[in-house]
Amino acid sequence: MTSASAEVTDTVHALAECWNQHDMNAVTVLFAQDVEFVNVIGLWWKSCDEIRKAHWFAHARIFKNSHPTITAVAVRFPAADLAIARARWVLEGALAPDGSVLPARMDVLLKLLARSTDAWNIVDLQDTDIVEGALSRPQ
Amino acid sequence: MTSASAEVTDTVHALAECWNQHDMNAVTVLFAQDVEFVNVIGLWWKSCDEIRKAHWFAHARIFKNSHPTITAVAVRFPAADLAIARARWVLEGALAPDGSVLPARMDVLLKLLARSTDAWNIVDLQDTDIVEGALSRPQ
Repeated sequence: MTSASAEVTDTVHALAECWNQHDMNAVTVLFAQDVEFVNVIGLWWKSCDEIRKAHWFAHARIFKNSHPTITAVAVRFPAADLAIARARWVLEGALAPDGSVLPARMDVLLKLLARSTDAWNIVDLQDTDIVEGALSRPQ
Repeated sequence: MTSASAEVTDTVHALAECWNQHDMNAVTVLFAQDVEFVNVIGLWWKSCDEIRKAHWFAHARIFKNSHPTITAVAVRFPAADLAIARARWVLEGALAPDGSVLPARMDVLLKLLARSTDAWNIVDLQDTDIVEGALSRPQ
């Protein structure tokens, strides 16, 4: 793994660790100010502050006991200072509106990162739930 | 709209037009060879050829009478020769496994495009279904 790949992978894991700690202020250190994020149901947030507020709300409620586990990260570089990082992750412990614990959910979370002078910042995210068995894999 | 924004938006519409014509060979002209694509159920294709084969299969079956309509496109540039394009689109006419026509589906389709000498090529895509009313918008 190259140094850049390792740095990007570290950032992916740092975001998951913020989630595990339910620390939505720490998340903002990883994000560019104009970051955008489309979540698993198509909600489209258009700034760091919108994402922070939405996740603060959710982590006080449906995600308050939830924990993600990253099972794979793939990194590639469409330009020298830009990285595409895709992570498969499993989210356990999320709550339904009635307070019951939901089954584990598997997602593919895409992140686009840009390198600044001293760090990789996340400039875009999009998340998609994995639905097993809905369509055969083409391979 | 800048010239670059207009060119990227044209490429987004060109992809939808390929879908409307069910011409999965034409799609490949828009893609980089190493393009990756995560679809709405988390299937993760890792080359132009994988995407072409998967969509050829689907357009001979569940998508053979389907038509997308793009309702909005937003373009931004994390670097001079890279563009993030997000489109909201509505897909009508897709078929269920029993042959019945499914309700219209709304998606947010993310595309990452890189500029070569004479065109913008799509280097990455991720699609997410919009689920209305599942979570209040945070704004």
